[in-house]
Amino acid sequence: MVTRKEVAILAGVSEATVSRVFNGVGPMREKTKQRVLEAAETLNYHPNAIAQNFARRRSGNIGVVLPYVPKVHIFSTYYFAEVLSGIGEQARNSGYDMLLMFRTPGEENDYSRLFRSHKVDACILLGATDTAQERAELAKLHENGFPYCVVNQHFPGAEFNLVDADHVEGSYQAVRHLIAGNCRHIAFLNGSVQYSNSGDRWLGYLRAMKEAGLLEAHVNIPAEMPAGLYYEGNYSRTSGYKAASAMAPHMERIDAVFASNDRMAIGLIQGLREHGFQPGRDYAIIGYDDSDAARVTDPPLSSVAVPFFEMGRIAAEQVIGRLNADDNVRMKPIGVKLDTRLVVRRSCRVEGTRF
Amino acid sequence: MVTRKEVAILAGVSEATVSRVFNGVGPMREKTKQRVLEAAETLNYHPNAIAQNFARRRSGNIGVVLPYVPKVHIFSTYYFAEVLSGIGEQARNSGYDMLLMFRTPGEENDYSRLFRSHKVDACILLGATDTAQERAELAKLHENGFPYCVVNQHFPGAEFNLVDADHVEGSYQAVRHLIAGNCRHIAFLNGSVQYSNSGDRWLGYLRAMKEAGLLEAHVNIPAEMPAGLYYEGNYSRTSGYKAASAMAPHMERIDAVFASNDRMAIGLIQGLREHGFQPGRDYAIIGYDDSDAARVTDPPLSSVAVPFFEMGRIAAEQVIGRLNADDNVRMKPIGVKLDTRLVVRRSCRVEGTRF
Repeated sequence: MVTRKEVAILAGVSEATVSRVFNGVGPMREKTKQRVLEAAETLNYHPNAIAQNFARRRSGNIGVVLPYVPKVHIFSTYYFAEVLSGIGEQARNSGYDMLLMFRTPGEENDYSRLFRSHKVDACILLGATDTAQERAELAKLHENGFPYCVVNQHFPGAEFNLVDADHVEGSYQAVRHLIAGNCRHIAFLNGSVQYSNSGDRWLGYLRAMKEAGLLEAHVNIPAEMPAGLYYEGNYSRTSGYKAASAMAPHMERIDAVFASNDRMAIGLIQGLREHGFQPGRDYAIIGYDDSDAARVTDPPLSSVAVPFFEMGRIAAEQVIGRLNADDNVRMKPIGVKLDTRLVVRRSCRVEGTRF
Repeated sequence: MVTRKEVAILAGVSEATVSRVFNGVGPMREKTKQRVLEAAETLNYHPNAIAQNFARRRSGNIGVVLPYVPKVHIFSTYYFAEVLSGIGEQARNSGYDMLLMFRTPGEENDYSRLFRSHKVDACILLGATDTAQERAELAKLHENGFPYCVVNQHFPGAEFNLVDADHVEGSYQAVRHLIAGNCRHIAFLNGSVQYSNSGDRWLGYLRAMKEAGLLEAHVNIPAEMPAGLYYEGNYSRTSGYKAASAMAPHMERIDAVFASNDRMAIGLIQGLREHGFQPGRDYAIIGYDDSDAARVTDPPLSSVAVPFFEMGRIAAEQVIGRLNADDNVRMKPIGVKLDTRLVVRRSCRVEGTRF
């Protein structure tokens, strides 16, 4: 067992100075600190957990990579706000700060550098998409055993660290509810297809529609859909509003809409209203996310609740848990999938339906 | 002019190694890097801005201190979401990451430590309150010339770095609008009094009411208000909802409400509805913040728009601008106050009033 005294002798300082370095107390010349840390490293001296953090050059930061989109107020987006709140809660309770790093989608990224440069001890990736470059970067993180986790995105065929929600089932339940209420011509307003959770929603919609015989079995991609039933936005309210113009000519037949998030649903409702169509009267509508906005719209919006806060909290808990774990645990993939839940409100109670 | 060669000789390394240290390129033994940096410091060698960052041990992080309140999803609060989005936009465009640090209100805080430990290069404080301890910590930051800025809170009598909005004028305009619409018994639902912006709202309300002869000149503190006109919440929706029970018995006389934020206004509307009072029919109401929720409530909520995004952006711009400034600039207080703007919607158009 190496003692504090041996470190002090090798570094040429007093024992009190060694303590001060390892407890991070008081002012300290950088040179002296370096000398003590080097002596401790040479002798493999690890007095306690705090000292270990010092010796391993821990930053005390959990990194969170966010997509940067000019003019988008990202923290005002329900999804990001909730996931970040969950990460923040766990980070704070575990004594970590959160380092937010913006990344322009499509630009090169080198997540491993964040670890090598000791900017972060662990890292959570939000808004990731399934591209070859992203897969290559994630593979590097994974192979190096860096504690990382992707939230709300999965990568078919690859085994990365993930915390996700069951969006196939969530979408399936939403569309089944519309069908149970006698809706037959159910339009689908999906979000950007580069996200796996858009693909998941598509699968849930397809399954419910086919089971009820409302879509033919051969339909597998949006291009094969009957005219007027499929629309695509980018998860913004504006994109939902714009979809209304494309949808309006088909509203004679459409009796319900399933939208991939509440923001697009709210934009769509606004747009369809301008064309004279009222939700909960002329058509039923279900959104997704169960955001705050869903509760205060008129009529209140049915939606699919996703435990975003919990997803963020669990991702943080998982990566922090790996920080002091041995290699066996560090190399074991994180794979968590949480349940979603349909929340029925007045937007899908249409007269003449069975709701 | 000191040359790279002189640094190389003093450090006992090659010139190429000196370049690699100052350009941050390639792998490098920590010991070698330290030796080069120390030699450079001794000779006062500063090849370029990147080298300066290295020599000064810059972290590349803008710190943001946030209040930690258990169970509150802080990023889902319009105010924090917008300010953080503004800070994020500017930080990202200036090449900085954002380090979020949670602080439990009332607990001890040592902001200067963040700088001394090189965790952050500059720091923005959100959710600060006016306490003796807070003032002492801010004074330390200020005297040391650390680049910091407080957002949306001011400290009477002290000259700290601040970016604020004109909440006195915003509140004055809101209450004047209600008075112009023939409202006479205007109740005020204020937020927590430890925030300067709650005090500002009180001043704006008082001024408008007194000018119109609706309050006597001697009223200066809430305790001196006529019965039934003053209520206090904590800026949460629940606190607004609870205020409705206290307000309901007075609704025979009350013809309008001014609420210090939209969340409380929305909670209050919900609560009063349960007592049979409809906004825009039985009473007029104006909220504050002009959050997303104000637009989607029924009826849409009149509110006072505050440029939170811009406040965050400017605070970040100001502290980052001080990073490479000389002492004269660094010691000059930041003092920015932005305008607010009344946004009129249907919640304050009551029949029988002049709206």
